[in-house]
Amino acid sequence: MANSPITSPLKESDKEVTANALQATLVDLIDLSLIAKQAHWNVVGSHFRSVHLQLDELVSAARGFTDDVAERANAIGVSPNGKAKTVADTSGLPEYPDNWQADTATIAAIVDILARVIERIRARIDETDKSDLVTQDLLIEIAAELEKQHWMWQAQQA
Amino acid sequence: MANSPITSPLKESDKEVTANALQATLVDLIDLSLIAKQAHWNVVGSHFRSVHLQLDELVSAARGFTDDVAERANAIGVSPNGKAKTVADTSGLPEYPDNWQADTATIAAIVDILARVIERIRARIDETDKSDLVTQDLLIEIAAELEKQHWMWQAQQA
Amino acid sequence: MANSPITSPLKESDKEVTANALQATLVDLIDLSLIAKQAHWNVVGSHFRSVHLQLDELVSAARGFTDDVAERANAIGVSPNGKAKTVADTSGLPEYPDNWQADTATIAAIVDILARVIERIRARIDETDKSDLVTQDLLIEIAAELEKQHWMWQAQQA
Amino acid sequence: MANSPITSPLKESDKEVTANALQATLVDLIDLSLIAKQAHWNVVGSHFRSVHLQLDELVSAARGFTDDVAERANAIGVSPNGKAKTVADTSGLPEYPDNWQADTATIAAIVDILARVIERIRARIDETDKSDLVTQDLLIEIAAELEKQHWMWQAQQA
Amino acid sequence: MANSPITSPLKESDKEVTANALQATLVDLIDLSLIAKQAHWNVVGSHFRSVHLQLDELVSAARGFTDDVAERANAIGVSPNGKAKTVADTSGLPEYPDNWQADTATIAAIVDILARVIERIRARIDETDKSDLVTQDLLIEIAAELEKQHWMWQAQQA
Amino acid sequence: MANSPITSPLKESDKEVTANALQATLVDLIDLSLIAKQAHWNVVGSHFRSVHLQLDELVSAARGFTDDVAERANAIGVSPNGKAKTVADTSGLPEYPDNWQADTATIAAIVDILARVIERIRARIDETDKSDLVTQDLLIEIAAELEKQHWMWQAQQA
Amino acid sequence: MANSPITSPLKESDKEVTANALQATLVDLIDLSLIAKQAHWNVVGSHFRSVHLQLDELVSAARGFTDDVAERANAIGVSPNGKAKTVADTSGLPEYPDNWQADTATIAAIVDILARVIERIRARIDETDKSDLVTQDLLIEIAAELEKQHWMWQAQQA
Amino acid sequence: MANSPITSPLKESDKEVTANALQATLVDLIDLSLIAKQAHWNVVGSHFRSVHLQLDELVSAARGFTDDVAERANAIGVSPNGKAKTVADTSGLPEYPDNWQADTATIAAIVDILARVIERIRARIDETDKSDLVTQDLLIEIAAELEKQHWMWQAQQA
Amino acid sequence: MANSPITSPLKESDKEVTANALQATLVDLIDLSLIAKQAHWNVVGSHFRSVHLQLDELVSAARGFTDDVAERANAIGVSPNGKAKTVADTSGLPEYPDNWQADTATIAAIVDILARVIERIRARIDETDKSDLVTQDLLIEIAAELEKQHWMWQAQQA
Amino acid sequence: MANSPITSPLKESDKEVTANALQATLVDLIDLSLIAKQAHWNVVGSHFRSVHLQLDELVSAARGFTDDVAERANAIGVSPNGKAKTVADTSGLPEYPDNWQADTATIAAIVDILARVIERIRARIDETDKSDLVTQDLLIEIAAELEKQHWMWQAQQA
Amino acid sequence: MANSPITSPLKESDKEVTANALQATLVDLIDLSLIAKQAHWNVVGSHFRSVHLQLDELVSAARGFTDDVAERANAIGVSPNGKAKTVADTSGLPEYPDNWQADTATIAAIVDILARVIERIRARIDETDKSDLVTQDLLIEIAAELEKQHWMWQAQQA
Amino acid sequence: MANSPITSPLKESDKEVTANALQATLVDLIDLSLIAKQAHWNVVGSHFRSVHLQLDELVSAARGFTDDVAERANAIGVSPNGKAKTVADTSGLPEYPDNWQADTATIAAIVDILARVIERIRARIDETDKSDLVTQDLLIEIAAELEKQHWMWQAQQA
Repeated sequence: MANSPITSPLKESDKEVTANALQATLVDLIDLSLIAKQAHWNVVGSHFRSVHLQLDELVSAARGFTDDVAERANAIGVSPNGKAKTVADTSGLPEYPDNWQADTATIAAIVDILARVIERIRARIDETDKSDLVTQDLLIEIAAELEKQHWMWQAQQA
Repeated sequence: MANSPITSPLKESDKEVTANALQATLVDLIDLSLIAKQAHWNVVGSHFRSVHLQLDELVSAARGFTDDVAERANAIGVSPNGKAKTVADTSGLPEYPDNWQADTATIAAIVDILARVIERIRARIDETDKSDLVTQDLLIEIAAELEKQHWMWQAQQA
Repeated sequence: MANSPITSPLKESDKEVTANALQATLVDLIDLSLIAKQAHWNVVGSHFRSVHLQLDELVSAARGFTDDVAERANAIGVSPNGKAKTVADTSGLPEYPDNWQADTATIAAIVDILARVIERIRARIDETDKSDLVTQDLLIEIAAELEKQHWMWQAQQA
Repeated sequence: MANSPITSPLKESDKEVTANALQATLVDLIDLSLIAKQAHWNVVGSHFRSVHLQLDELVSAARGFTDDVAERANAIGVSPNGKAKTVADTSGLPEYPDNWQADTATIAAIVDILARVIERIRARIDETDKSDLVTQDLLIEIAAELEKQHWMWQAQQA
Repeated sequence: MANSPITSPLKESDKEVTANALQATLVDLIDLSLIAKQAHWNVVGSHFRSVHLQLDELVSAARGFTDDVAERANAIGVSPNGKAKTVADTSGLPEYPDNWQADTATIAAIVDILARVIERIRARIDETDKSDLVTQDLLIEIAAELEKQHWMWQAQQA
Repeated sequence: MANSPITSPLKESDKEVTANALQATLVDLIDLSLIAKQAHWNVVGSHFRSVHLQLDELVSAARGFTDDVAERANAIGVSPNGKAKTVADTSGLPEYPDNWQADTATIAAIVDILARVIERIRARIDETDKSDLVTQDLLIEIAAELEKQHWMWQAQQA
Repeated sequence: MANSPITSPLKESDKEVTANALQATLVDLIDLSLIAKQAHWNVVGSHFRSVHLQLDELVSAARGFTDDVAERANAIGVSPNGKAKTVADTSGLPEYPDNWQADTATIAAIVDILARVIERIRARIDETDKSDLVTQDLLIEIAAELEKQHWMWQAQQA
Repeated sequence: MANSPITSPLKESDKEVTANALQATLVDLIDLSLIAKQAHWNVVGSHFRSVHLQLDELVSAARGFTDDVAERANAIGVSPNGKAKTVADTSGLPEYPDNWQADTATIAAIVDILARVIERIRARIDETDKSDLVTQDLLIEIAAELEKQHWMWQAQQA
Repeated sequence: MANSPITSPLKESDKEVTANALQATLVDLIDLSLIAKQAHWNVVGSHFRSVHLQLDELVSAARGFTDDVAERANAIGVSPNGKAKTVADTSGLPEYPDNWQADTATIAAIVDILARVIERIRARIDETDKSDLVTQDLLIEIAAELEKQHWMWQAQQA
Repeated sequence: MANSPITSPLKESDKEVTANALQATLVDLIDLSLIAKQAHWNVVGSHFRSVHLQLDELVSAARGFTDDVAERANAIGVSPNGKAKTVADTSGLPEYPDNWQADTATIAAIVDILARVIERIRARIDETDKSDLVTQDLLIEIAAELEKQHWMWQAQQA
Repeated sequence: MANSPITSPLKESDKEVTANALQATLVDLIDLSLIAKQAHWNVVGSHFRSVHLQLDELVSAARGFTDDVAERANAIGVSPNGKAKTVADTSGLPEYPDNWQADTATIAAIVDILARVIERIRARIDETDKSDLVTQDLLIEIAAELEKQHWMWQAQQA
Repeated sequence: MANSPITSPLKESDKEVTANALQATLVDLIDLSLIAKQAHWNVVGSHFRSVHLQLDELVSAARGFTDDVAERANAIGVSPNGKAKTVADTSGLPEYPDNWQADTATIAAIVDILARVIERIRARIDETDKSDLVTQDLLIEIAAELEKQHWMWQAQQA
């Protein structure tokens, strides 16, 4: 399967820029969903229940967006790669600690990780402005949701 | 957080046996969910739609069981670990190829992977028979579902 | 199609024991579902409405379990057989009379039939204890439901 | 219970003609539902999933109509008979083979069986034209659905 | 509003026959719904709950059909009349007694009333065979449902 | 069934006052529901659709309240009477004209009828203030809904 | 694909008559659905909202029936044709004007168009009386719904 | 926690009267819910199914009201007490017998118990008339529902 | 529109008293809904999520009641006024601070505001006791809900 | 709380531009929701019901967008202000008259108000084009919905 | 009713062992449900809302299991006893304090109580291993859920 | 109706550019929906069921977008035209063949048609970039969905 079985609505250079943005976003979002689940299972502290539930909303958003991003890659004629090894090797997210974590530490870690994801996705919104408005629109939608959740996590630190 | 914040209903030796079974199952199932999503996004061929949909049923089952298994680990006083690196390093599943895959190749790979997961979980059903009947019951439920799906994938090869 | 297209997670002897238990249970349950429908259509008497509705709950349970049992047969690499002739020839259930039946006679017949099915399934729970814990778990679930319904039918005779 | 406990809105001769049409249809439809389930459980081949799902739509239609037909028999003062032995002895449908069947063979068998059922029901639409328009209307509804499904099964052979 | 504001798809003589059938059916069905509610509120006896619930299914069917019938009258260019006085003056149904009624008496009364309604509607099915097939089809549907419920009420007397 | 099979939580004199209020309300509300349906079927004019839909909301409210009122009568040990003849003979509502009615005439008639029902129910709220607070509370709830709908009908006349 | 891949339950001459009725109905109904949408988008006037909503109910009915009719064509072994050009060339409906239309003009146009469709379908009910009762039953169902909606549109002109 | 953490909208004397009414009602209703479940599990006899289902409606009503009452106690600044010992010691309800009970005996016992609860709640409606109209309104709502169910239980004894 | 287009079921003096109570309640509740939304958006602190969610339940209750109150005003023939300026000028509620607020400060402010609203509505329950029982019943329902929520907010301060 | 507890993904100057756009939009939308509710409660005339319902769709859209806008403000690190006084003082919308309003006057007022809101939001779409694409995307979504509703209100004036 | 009206699928000695396990579990679970409700109503403190909600999940689980356990008792031919006095006298759970309780104290009490219930149910899982696998399976399911909830309560203390 | 009854938020030149883009898109999408239905009804071959179902997803998307596009035309003050003749005369899509089509031919045709629609819509995304961002956003959303479905159709050809 040397040649792509899926044609692209984009010209070659635009496709390459867009493909890179999508693949990197895919990996970040899968990592985000795994980290959020890890945090969901390992949080302890007096705010356990609230943080536990809120993390599942983050998992849910992240998982939904991985599908959108991977499907968008296909739509521009590119094979997405979201395997465990790919994520472990190429994710741009900070590492999450092993073992149970206090609720305050959990919140602090999620705040940092979301800041990092948002920064990376915002850069790709700029990169795709010329290459593919459809992909840019998807990245804007993802940024909107993550920035909203970022506020909610920060609000707990005030 | 040196000491476990969660007590165990099991005695120490039973807890260790059970914990190992659960942690290994958790990693296998997260890997299975990532592989099934990878296959879901990358399958091509005349049976694309059918295989694409069926893979999401596998993702859904695998994701649901990861929650059950990780929560069971907590219930016996053990912190579960489901991070990308942990999965990449310790999963017992065969690797899944990069890039688009023909539907027949996809089916063949899933059949092999499911066979491997089932074999590993069946071994843990035996191991937990003495250590924790509640955990064993969960592993039996997982085996039942995966063996059912295994039949459905094999049926397509006949 | 001389050879099975579906592999078994069980070793040959366990597979044979388990297969027999499943095939016999499948036939009993299909017969039970047909008898319960026959009774549902033919009951008369002052308790008609109540018995008519309760019989459909029995049909519904029986039908659901036939699917579980037949799928489990496939999952262990065995072809299930649930055709009318197979049921007529091999069912272990007492015969149900033709024509309309009074509600009291209907209740008495269902109580007897359920007692017989339960006894047969309990024997198979013992038989599969060594051969396949996954199948045993399914048989336990079926027994639990039928024994619950058996109480409810008997309660009407008190 | 020698005499019918249910009066008939039909005169005796019409009742007899209609009763025969309904009882024969009931048996055909129960047999159809059992055959479709048998096929659902035993189909193998590259189109397994699609055929497996489509067969359950046939089961669902057939089961729904058996209720309609048996209840209509009661409504005209006749006791319906849908027991396994009655079905095995009096069904007008071709036999379905034992064991797993290839998807193409499954489709071919279902196409033949549906053709046979439709032919038999169409004859009864003619027979009941004089005896009972309400029953005829039900048979027309059944024919409409089965002929629609018949097209869909044939379409796969083209 | 001397002239009809609604045109008719029927020629004048067919319209008249059909209109009479519809208006008479409307009155019968409104009366049936009021009687069934009266019975629903006034039934007593050991079968109270079952009969009370079953009567509401009859109310529900009767009410639904009054709408169908009145709308059909409009559709053929005829104004329907369903006022209390019209019903009291022109209904063809037997009277229902005042005050609480034993469950057995309630059942007997409903059986008689349904027999009368069915007989009257069957006559109109014949009358409309020439005048309007669309109306006839609606009357057949009503007869089918009422005859089914008639069986269920009679079944309680056996 | 000379004696009431249902005891009353009220003393005899209170029961009589309350019973009269409930029986009169029951008749008014059944008549209201029949008139609203009559209007629903017979309205014509440029506002047909809006008035047609709004009338069904009135039917729905009136029908729901007839059940509440009749059940309340039973709860205080009184048999409710809601038969067509009773309604035709004892309803306190103005008569509704036969035949199709213009939308403006329909609205005007409903406004008048609602005014009359509300006036009658308000009188009964006063009468039951001493005899039964539970019944009074139900009458208040009915008045609240009818007065709200009264406003909406009047608003169309402004 | 010279020969039909779908067999017919009808004999050749009946099939031809029925096929013509179905193909002509299909085209009429697709045209009706496009006209109703056109009107839905282009209506203006004080009754805008009511007419706008009512038109979507017509679209919804028309679309549902196109599926029923096209599937029925297949069921009798005939390929249906519902392409834009076929509709533009062979529809029997009056033309609908371009541009925004006042609500009164919109209502008048829909009343005329429905009258025309109903007349054409009624003719086909007669034609199929001998050729195929199943198809006739479908046409009766379509007529019933369109005649009901026709009344509602006319009611607004009164 | 010597002082109440919740302020009261009532003045002290009104609060005391109201608090007593609520606490006594809470205990009665919890006892009612436990008795109704006990009866639900232990009823036998030919009316088993009907009584079994009806008892769960009583449980459901009683449970819902316990929440309303306990929350109302909090709303007036009083801690509610619904523990098993409190219920066993202070309930005003007649005792319910151990062991299976015939359906007629079950009905008789429930009729008596409901009569007792209603009598007690009616007394509290009077008591709270001066102390708190909001609480009185809740007690009226509870009385309305229990008196309705009381009728339905008595109706079975007629 | 000098004269009221809506008649009143109340006599003039009762109408005036009731109208004042309703208009004042309307303004209070709109202000409450705006304050609760302001708090919902501006709360920060470790209890952010819980308070954020709880505030939306308050918004939802307040919004629902504004509709009930404004519709009740219409029902007694009075035009309700709920514009921003009216609320800003005539609300009886304490002011809510600008900017983000800590969760503890948020809770304290809501507790105070609810106390004030409840006090004002309780006064109006007394005022309407003579003028309109239907309005009083609505105010009792509002007080019941707000007092319940008041407890829940206070409970967090203990 | 002098410093913002929420970081911004925007640089300071972009944040200021965006914050102004969001705060002004928030106030406009809250005012729009209050005006639409005022109109919803005070409309009279022959089109009352249609306009009354349509206004609630406007309320619903406006309320939903206020949440989106206020949450977006938080997401860029800015505290939103939606209190009654803020709205009364800073809204850019024309005033809405007191008292009941005829339906035509209501429609005219809403058409003008929507025109004004749309004009103001379109200006902010331009302003945020450089400062924040995520906010711009939200404003585009709001404009799309309001312009659609604007058409529907205008359509009634044609 | 000296003799049991329900037969047992178990032999006498197994029935006795199983019956004891079920009756003791029933009492424990009813007590757990009452304690959890008591705590739900009486918790105060900054975590009020979260603990209040979480307690209702415990109530819901406990209530569901009481039904399963009581029905299982019947299914093995034993009458269950769940009356208030039985619970007060024979429950094995620690007592819960009267009056409002701080959230931390509430959590601590629930953690202790759950530990005690789990310990008791685990003992019964061992006891029923020989006597009845169906009952054992139910006890395993109960333990699984309670141990999961136990973790969640402990997690708040870390 | 010479002048537009709907004002435009756009200046004249922008309105013209945008109007052309919307009208052309409307026609393309209606044609797409008719072609997809035609294909849905006429596909045959071993993949019939899968392709048949997938085509309905395309119909559903296309129909939804036609509403969005036509409503957007109105929102900018332009009357949309979606009549059969307009579609037949001005659609930019390749023609679809008459008669039954093999599944492979069906897939090939849909792949080509989608490629053509996407190309045309992408051109309009560029054209509206200056004239109307709201319209552009809608076209981007349409392209996103069609490009996703395009991938899925191509994937079946690999």
